[in-house]
Amino acid sequence: MTPLVVAMGDPAGVGPETIAKAWEARGTHALPPFVVVGDARAIEAVWQGPIARIDDLRDARRTFDEALPVLSLHDAGVVVPGQPSADGARAAFHALETATGLAQSGAARALVTAPVGKAQLYHVGFTHPGQTEFVAERCGVARENAVMMLAGPELRVVPITTHVPLAAVPGLLSFELILAKVRVTARGLAKNFGIARPRLAFAGLNPHAGESGALGREEIEVIEPAIAQLRHEGIDIDGPLAADTMFHPRARVRYDAAICCYHDQALVPLKTLHFDEGVNITLGLPIVRTSPDHGTAFGIAGQNKAHPGAMIAAIAVADAAASNRQRYAAACK
Amino acid sequence: MTPLVVAMGDPAGVGPETIAKAWEARGTHALPPFVVVGDARAIEAVWQGPIARIDDLRDARRTFDEALPVLSLHDAGVVVPGQPSADGARAAFHALETATGLAQSGAARALVTAPVGKAQLYHVGFTHPGQTEFVAERCGVARENAVMMLAGPELRVVPITTHVPLAAVPGLLSFELILAKVRVTARGLAKNFGIARPRLAFAGLNPHAGESGALGREEIEVIEPAIAQLRHEGIDIDGPLAADTMFHPRARVRYDAAICCYHDQALVPLKTLHFDEGVNITLGLPIVRTSPDHGTAFGIAGQNKAHPGAMIAAIAVADAAASNRQRYAAACK
Repeated sequence: MTPLVVAMGDPAGVGPETIAKAWEARGTHALPPFVVVGDARAIEAVWQGPIARIDDLRDARRTFDEALPVLSLHDAGVVVPGQPSADGARAAFHALETATGLAQSGAARALVTAPVGKAQLYHVGFTHPGQTEFVAERCGVARENAVMMLAGPELRVVPITTHVPLAAVPGLLSFELILAKVRVTARGLAKNFGIARPRLAFAGLNPHAGESGALGREEIEVIEPAIAQLRHEGIDIDGPLAADTMFHPRARVRYDAAICCYHDQALVPLKTLHFDEGVNITLGLPIVRTSPDHGTAFGIAGQNKAHPGAMIAAIAVADAAASNRQRYAAACK
Repeated sequence: MTPLVVAMGDPAGVGPETIAKAWEARGTHALPPFVVVGDARAIEAVWQGPIARIDDLRDARRTFDEALPVLSLHDAGVVVPGQPSADGARAAFHALETATGLAQSGAARALVTAPVGKAQLYHVGFTHPGQTEFVAERCGVARENAVMMLAGPELRVVPITTHVPLAAVPGLLSFELILAKVRVTARGLAKNFGIARPRLAFAGLNPHAGESGALGREEIEVIEPAIAQLRHEGIDIDGPLAADTMFHPRARVRYDAAICCYHDQALVPLKTLHFDEGVNITLGLPIVRTSPDHGTAFGIAGQNKAHPGAMIAAIAVADAAASNRQRYAAACK
């Protein structure tokens, strides 16, 4: 079995620490062999454990029990935890590119990306909004067909719109966009999570899902026609539902993923329930790609304060998704 | 000690059943004496327990241990659970009016309102958006000074805007509205919850609270100036914060109430955590008024399926608020 690759992200952020802590927890969480792509010195700056510098991913399996395997290709310059630099951003960029290529080639069975500093990346010539868009483009997948899902043990959510002002959301929420995102989500749940017939629940845009038009008409004019079309295609999707009644325990058991209209509608319940273990998984790609659902947290980097829960979960979810994809591919032969 | 009054709400909804179940749980939850205002036959239609029809609230204390006291003034007609009628709506309207008057007069120490069917009420001449606005007007309080807070054991939230389309929210969110709502909230926490110096947290409107203007400018142009003014007045308020990072357990201990920009931003985390025990308390009134944070649920009325948790909590919170107000008034003498 090939290892997973973990792109280190910004070397001055909490990536190196959370990766090292995940390796320490490999036994407790039965994590599969993984290899870090990035400058090993960034990990040494925050961690005293054993590191194995390797040149070939095939050495990962042999070394993983005893030391954290690192494919240390990229020079991050002088790493000071909490102080991002241009050299560090360049190393993060290169690590992402290398790790993506390793997953595409099949040398790695899945890609996990640690957090990057977007402002820093933009300064060194990174032109994508984020890592997701970069990976999608490298994989030849159009942006609307790459879907961000946030997943925790008890809830999975997909925001239809993401990092845009709230005032822009009603205008962006189109019939076509909903169809694209929901189709990818339904197929992605089958492929990555082994859910043969996923059940989806769609959150209305307005309070009480518009209350028959009294509190907004987007449900009637856009969302309901899109849901009707998706049902016609055989997708099991309920809604639009009142968002505030969708996320308590008895409601959550009725669906496999909640489709939400905007960032906070999806992220608020997810992080309320799963702040330390939320995983971002990109659906619609030919490779498995996950990341911990948090940022670089420069403010606490290097202080041994970072919680590795989300990194551990990102590795575990990526591993399970890779296995589910093999089963899915075998079943579809 | 005077009793609380519970306005029965729509006799065909889950109000009668949840009130009766709350009375059954009076020992377990140490509930204070309360009197139902409404047609006793609506309770008899769904419950076999003992009812004491009383004419004077002063009889409540004597009867409460043995039977559910009901001030049965209003004829609800023929009550069929799950089938709202004009007679039932009229009875709900009259019960609300009577119960409000009893709380205003001091004959009752607090007002709890069970859910009403708004559509039904509008048909019988009720001209207020909801019970909150009716009670506020009777108490001589302007609408912007009556604040809806939703409270559960681990979280309290206040939405600045409530039942409006999402697209209208950015335009409604003004400097003046924020000041009015937050001032009432801070004072209301001191009076009703006994929190001498309440700590407030304000959720940004946009994802990541606008990310310094990159994802929306309302934080910079409206929210931050309002927060600066409120701090100048001595109110302890943090923000604007990224809404998705505000509601996990470690974040919640940092504040006594979260101020949110719109309905779902407040109600999604509240109901995710406290679906069966959420209480709506109106701050800014001269009387204590609470209600369970759910609707009439006509679809399950009369089937012994209604969960009384929110009604029990509404009664308990009203009782505690009444006691805290007495202490507050004594301390401010």
